[in-house]
Amino acid sequence: MRPYDIIKKKREGHSLTRDELTSFLTGYLKGQISDYQVSAFLMAVFFNGMTPEETVCLTEVMLSSGTVLDLSAIPGPKVDKHSTGGVGDKVSLILAPLVASAGIIVPMISGRGLGHTGGTLDKIESIPGFNTGLNIKEFKEVLSKSGCAIIGISEEMAPLDGRLYALRDVTATIESIPLITGSIMSKKLSEGIQGLVLDVKVGSGAFMKDLKGARELAKSMVDIGNSFGVKTIAAITDMNEPLGLAIGNSLEVHECIDVLKNKGPEDLVEVTLYLGALMLKVACIEANLEAGTKKLKQLIKDGSALKKFKEMVQLQGGNPDILKRSTLLPHSCLSVDIASIRKGYIQSMEAEAIGTAAMILGAGREKMDSSIDPAAGIILRKKTGDFVEENETLCSLCTSDEAVVTKAGKIFLDALTFAERPPEKRKMIIEAME
Amino acid sequence: MRPYDIIKKKREGHSLTRDELTSFLTGYLKGQISDYQVSAFLMAVFFNGMTPEETVCLTEVMLSSGTVLDLSAIPGPKVDKHSTGGVGDKVSLILAPLVASAGIIVPMISGRGLGHTGGTLDKIESIPGFNTGLNIKEFKEVLSKSGCAIIGISEEMAPLDGRLYALRDVTATIESIPLITGSIMSKKLSEGIQGLVLDVKVGSGAFMKDLKGARELAKSMVDIGNSFGVKTIAAITDMNEPLGLAIGNSLEVHECIDVLKNKGPEDLVEVTLYLGALMLKVACIEANLEAGTKKLKQLIKDGSALKKFKEMVQLQGGNPDILKRSTLLPHSCLSVDIASIRKGYIQSMEAEAIGTAAMILGAGREKMDSSIDPAAGIILRKKTGDFVEENETLCSLCTSDEAVVTKAGKIFLDALTFAERPPEKRKMIIEAME
Repeated sequence: MRPYDIIKKKREGHSLTRDELTSFLTGYLKGQISDYQVSAFLMAVFFNGMTPEETVCLTEVMLSSGTVLDLSAIPGPKVDKHSTGGVGDKVSLILAPLVASAGIIVPMISGRGLGHTGGTLDKIESIPGFNTGLNIKEFKEVLSKSGCAIIGISEEMAPLDGRLYALRDVTATIESIPLITGSIMSKKLSEGIQGLVLDVKVGSGAFMKDLKGARELAKSMVDIGNSFGVKTIAAITDMNEPLGLAIGNSLEVHECIDVLKNKGPEDLVEVTLYLGALMLKVACIEANLEAGTKKLKQLIKDGSALKKFKEMVQLQGGNPDILKRSTLLPHSCLSVDIASIRKGYIQSMEAEAIGTAAMILGAGREKMDSSIDPAAGIILRKKTGDFVEENETLCSLCTSDEAVVTKAGKIFLDALTFAERPPEKRKMIIEAME
Repeated sequence: MRPYDIIKKKREGHSLTRDELTSFLTGYLKGQISDYQVSAFLMAVFFNGMTPEETVCLTEVMLSSGTVLDLSAIPGPKVDKHSTGGVGDKVSLILAPLVASAGIIVPMISGRGLGHTGGTLDKIESIPGFNTGLNIKEFKEVLSKSGCAIIGISEEMAPLDGRLYALRDVTATIESIPLITGSIMSKKLSEGIQGLVLDVKVGSGAFMKDLKGARELAKSMVDIGNSFGVKTIAAITDMNEPLGLAIGNSLEVHECIDVLKNKGPEDLVEVTLYLGALMLKVACIEANLEAGTKKLKQLIKDGSALKKFKEMVQLQGGNPDILKRSTLLPHSCLSVDIASIRKGYIQSMEAEAIGTAAMILGAGREKMDSSIDPAAGIILRKKTGDFVEENETLCSLCTSDEAVVTKAGKIFLDALTFAERPPEKRKMIIEAME
């Protein structure tokens, strides 16, 4: 079948056979099929979707386009966690050392942030010296020594995903459940893990704005994971409000250390412990979530998780003294408090807008090639449900660029709604699916 | 707005403003926007369509990407005819000299055939010496001398259409009403005409298989033509059976000469006179179709139309002696009669399959770069409604490639259905729209 016929078949809503899809994708990898044919195909997939069988095939071709890590020489269950992204979502940075201190090997391969959402790599790189560019040999060394490591995707792993993602990014074909599934899962399956916990964020600050979409994405990814023999559980968690109090790279690292020191904000701790307990369950270390949560709390309390974090930072070239002296982390030359212009209970804090405000301050990228300021961001002083007086401080904006403060402050204020009575308490964990 | 945002906006089903669409298309022409972005955009248009305003804008940018002919120095109304294509559709070759002999200037810019449908250029080029590659100056000279000329599209005219068409052709985005409208109409409007008659074919051998689609395409093109100040009428005509008896390039030229000699097959003559009368109406030469038809019949009877054809052939370098000696046209070394394997009334002759059989014999192209055999094709000896005895000849296959005869013969036979009673007479002219 010619590439033309494959595009047309998908355009007409038919499903492609294994052979058709494989030959199209490998033809692209080999340079026999052009970018313009693939982008038309991707747009047809955006409209007509893919069957579960097609999504398996897509993931498989992406996976087999590169190396799959063999971590069998390192003893212990290999489990990773992936989030679909949100505002203030720094859970990965806490979870990696936390569950590693419980005996799990966490080979975490992460990405960068874009738009209003942050990326794990950008966050961890705000630690002076921290190197996310380890090669596979070095990655394995850190893993066998400390049980966890965080690096960026290497060109050896799922290169087809890299090429397709770059094309989707400029042709408005990102927002497709089978394409997202293939992209995320091929990268995660490349890690050579036996278990995977997915955090599918839902709400204004998430990629998926409604529960229906979040469930569909969760189901698609769980099915793919399990069909490749990787025990996969997806949690759907709230992203209508930023997670925790800190938004911005070094600010979030600071907050992660707070959590590991057992003084983190409630919502962040709740989500972290829940996802961690799922990881322990997937790894068969604890059979139920209660026992897992208890174990994780203990590992925080007795300092094991913090110690593991320090170990990982040190092994990846970062300065471990940041744990004692937070001023060693990048910090902004300018911190501006934003005061409330009215009094009342905060009813909502629209996460996407707050993420955008943080991006404008320098914490995020508008385009993939924009540079970021590791110290910039927002520290929330109040959250949804809190009562504020007029003129009381709502947040502090941190930046090195005075010119953007007014705009960011306005976006922040516009993102809040107030009421005379406190809102119902937000449910952080919506459901899980396996 | 970035190209990305324009693709996304169309993908989401919104309509683009004039500025957005214009900047996207001109950006492509200037090389600032890549093929892969445009092909994703075209696929989004395939799914979400375009508003009439967007289609006008598309046509306008295509038109203004090149030269629009100025034929004001040539006296007389300038009117052209365009068919959406079918099997055995040689009407343009007859109409150009026929209506020119009635005083219309016909600056006919035509295309080549693809798949089961033929193209006017391929047909006329089967006349030895006929040159369809005239430059604009030469084209105008022939027009002022004989009133009609048939050439291929030049690179100076609507080059954006040429680029978009090439991209659509390999990305399965041909079949979109606004894109077809823009492509056809930008080329026709480039001719500098005041009137246009469109023949929208409907049926198994046409691009539009059903009346609903044909009406939609007809309306879209008529609206565009009229909005550019060109009086436009569309006829919807039947293409369930090949038109006339000849399919294949030189075979069709031969049949055109028969029509001009007043001995053409009934269905072909009916469609030709109808479309010709519409052209006379559009040109304000005859106010009603009856008077127009009468005039055209007279111009055939008195030899004026044939004389005009000879003039055009001669002026474009073709051998005028073909009119007297048809053996001067290319003819096949092999002619194989196909006999009926049963007796009865022919109920239907599936035009697309018969067009495909002719293509296999060498009359058409499977791909744009395939070569064709000007002498190859099919001569029908029977048509729908005819009674045939077992073993009676249904058609003659003409080819220079003996190896394809069996396959073509089988496709031909499979394309026919028989019954004990004659079918209802086919209505050739379905409706007209202006």
